[in-house]
Amino acid sequence: MDILHYQQEFLEYLKSKVWVREPKNLYEPIGYILQLGGKRMRPILTLMAADIFSSDYKKALPAALAVEVFHNFTLVHDDIMDDAPLRRGKETVHEKWDVSTGILSGDAMLILAYQYFENYEPIVFQKLAKLFSKTALEVCDGQQLDVDFETRNDVTIDEYINMIRLKTSVLVAAALKMGAIVAETEDENADLIYNFGLNLGLAFQLQDDYLDTFGDPETFGKQVGGDIIENKKTFLYLKALETSNEVDKQKLQLLFNQKLEDNSLKIKKVTEIFENCNIPELIKVEIENYTQKAFDTLSNMDISESNKQNLKSFGLWLMNRTV
Amino acid sequence: MDILHYQQEFLEYLKSKVWVREPKNLYEPIGYILQLGGKRMRPILTLMAADIFSSDYKKALPAALAVEVFHNFTLVHDDIMDDAPLRRGKETVHEKWDVSTGILSGDAMLILAYQYFENYEPIVFQKLAKLFSKTALEVCDGQQLDVDFETRNDVTIDEYINMIRLKTSVLVAAALKMGAIVAETEDENADLIYNFGLNLGLAFQLQDDYLDTFGDPETFGKQVGGDIIENKKTFLYLKALETSNEVDKQKLQLLFNQKLEDNSLKIKKVTEIFENCNIPELIKVEIENYTQKAFDTLSNMDISESNKQNLKSFGLWLMNRTV
Repeated sequence: MDILHYQQEFLEYLKSKVWVREPKNLYEPIGYILQLGGKRMRPILTLMAADIFSSDYKKALPAALAVEVFHNFTLVHDDIMDDAPLRRGKETVHEKWDVSTGILSGDAMLILAYQYFENYEPIVFQKLAKLFSKTALEVCDGQQLDVDFETRNDVTIDEYINMIRLKTSVLVAAALKMGAIVAETEDENADLIYNFGLNLGLAFQLQDDYLDTFGDPETFGKQVGGDIIENKKTFLYLKALETSNEVDKQKLQLLFNQKLEDNSLKIKKVTEIFENCNIPELIKVEIENYTQKAFDTLSNMDISESNKQNLKSFGLWLMNRTV
Repeated sequence: MDILHYQQEFLEYLKSKVWVREPKNLYEPIGYILQLGGKRMRPILTLMAADIFSSDYKKALPAALAVEVFHNFTLVHDDIMDDAPLRRGKETVHEKWDVSTGILSGDAMLILAYQYFENYEPIVFQKLAKLFSKTALEVCDGQQLDVDFETRNDVTIDEYINMIRLKTSVLVAAALKMGAIVAETEDENADLIYNFGLNLGLAFQLQDDYLDTFGDPETFGKQVGGDIIENKKTFLYLKALETSNEVDKQKLQLLFNQKLEDNSLKIKKVTEIFENCNIPELIKVEIENYTQKAFDTLSNMDISESNKQNLKSFGLWLMNRTV
């Protein structure tokens, strides 16, 4: 099992899909966003799961493409909602074209994702499409909760975990399960790999929260402190509110009401409070819990020990990003 | 066959679907737009087709709902693109909430439409979902062409017909074919009723163009002259450019470059040119051609003569709106 091999295979398949359909103004932005790059994590997961449960993982390429096109659809529409000028260092679709183009090209991508499932026979098709619709709707729910949380001051940690589960983890889980569905493994295996992905997805997102504040600026892809600048109510913030003394709590709430020109002092102060409250340790416990939960699902999975080890290695590789 | 009966049945089914799912801010706008009214023409077509090809049209209710929810999804997103404040006399979703809500609730509606097909067994499901994806993508294509045409001065009549086919007729056609698919009639029947709908849809849209300028202000639902005010390159305008003398042609192009405060003189002048060029007669010929084409598909359809007569009566009823 070789991650880079799946990635290469997927990129070739993606390239083979010609995005020159008419009308140009609708399909050019789709080609643009899909060529912007990214790790292609989700389609890799689909291919990997198909490989683990069957011999022919290439059969899963259309499903992998559906997942990647859907993911990029969410980026195009989310970027409009967030008024984001850049995506992967390049202009967002609504910046390079306009908001109408972003909306309509995004809509077309969501429909295209469904069309890729048409490569499968009816029973597999229905399973894929059902899982996809359920997942896509959950991602919308998660995005809405994320928006709602911006203006709420009573968000609980459980609510936050539920939001990141919907916004990001269910798609990781579904990407894996789609590979299992294409491989036509037993339903129990498919459900187990879904749970593996769901928990690993939660661990990964919590690690992202951690790295956003405590990551190495040299190796972390985004600006360290970005969540603090944006007053994002991440696990770090919510856990600090829960565990800090009254003074730190009020300081933190005050700091999170500010939008500043120079954020370096704000980042420094908030990071200090997080450290005072032992948040780095507390979040690491959570990350390890979810990672362990993911690994626990492997024991009941009807696959070879070497494949279990492969999935575990993949999980460890994913979670051992440089801090 | 009773149109009002189908409408009543559909409205009850729509009402039975509770739109109180969480998060509220995502699903309330969906309930809002779906309760705004409208003739429910498309779901009625689905029920009618199912009734004609089988005995149990109620089986087609979920497919009918998918069509109606999809249609309303296009309204929500189109209203954002057109910056429209009102829809059926009430605030549009992005006005009542905001643009982000309009985008995300629309996305959720597109996904919900697919979910309604999950009520059917795999083969019917795949047929419905395939037709739906093809149609939905064509509607996006049509919307994009409509946007593109706004800034083009060389749109041909063929291109215009193609645009309205994609933007409006394919959904009318697909609504009928979905009823046929649910009824599990032969593919030939399903294709014939699709063509019936496609041609009737074109006739209907051309009649809409006609009524927008020449309709009776008392009975036409929208503002008479609206297309002229908006400089819309409808069949009337394109046909007038094709058939008028050089003087009228230049006058018309000049008038269609203006955005005025008081449009009554502009409407009067443009209408006169249209009348000079005999456009009302020419468009009526086109409308009759497409209506006749629709009726011609009935001869090969494997249904009773009384059902053919029902479809014909429905077509005539649709096309005999007060002028």
